[in-house]
Amino acid sequence: MAFMIAQRAFIKLYLITMVEQQRGYGYQMLEEMKESFKPFGYVPPQSEIYRALHELVHEGVFYRTKQLKGSDPRVDFQEIVLYHFTEDGPEKAKLYKKQVKTDLDRCLGMLNKAAEDNYGT
Amino acid sequence: MAFMIAQRAFIKLYLITMVEQQRGYGYQMLEEMKESFKPFGYVPPQSEIYRALHELVHEGVFYRTKQLKGSDPRVDFQEIVLYHFTEDGPEKAKLYKKQVKTDLDRCLGMLNKAAEDNYGT
Repeated sequence: MAFMIAQRAFIKLYLITMVEQQRGYGYQMLEEMKESFKPFGYVPPQSEIYRALHELVHEGVFYRTKQLKGSDPRVDFQEIVLYHFTEDGPEKAKLYKKQVKTDLDRCLGMLNKAAEDNYGT
Repeated sequence: MAFMIAQRAFIKLYLITMVEQQRGYGYQMLEEMKESFKPFGYVPPQSEIYRALHELVHEGVFYRTKQLKGSDPRVDFQEIVLYHFTEDGPEKAKLYKKQVKTDLDRCLGMLNKAAEDNYGT
């Protein structure tokens, strides 16, 4: 088993939860992740977020659609990308989230143990 | 800032604590680390532990000595390697442990946040 949870898995976890909560607007997902972790000094690389989204599409969890940003096609020509669950997406996502939870707990255990063993906290 | 704490830093933390507690017998440090993390399915690679020890010597935190394992030089010819603090080793180690604590807490914060955000726990 790896040392710590992979960044890719951590990001995919967040992307799945965002789509579960109907927040599948690509650009917004990017911004949300970056804002979320600012207090921790961690900025998830944009390329990693895109790769994670691509993997979730490739694995048949998500599919993506493009829509015009506004409602008037004469002036609103900016395209936005949206991510949605495929038909068996929720099921695949649920299984994936279960695996990531195990890894998350494992890492929390190791770090808490390290804090105890080395600092007595 | 990196995503998660580096494996090298994690291992160095444990090695420092071991020497602080007079448990600086090289081979034993290796075995102890491996045993410690068995329950988590994590096996710190021997090469990584050696590299960490080497770094701590290179950074002037530790120095190493070799001793005969037993007390009778006629039969006890097995050499063991011991690690000790240099004169300013404890001071350097204290500073290093402080930095690692910050990183440890940062990672714990991120993982706890991820558990909360994605699983409501």
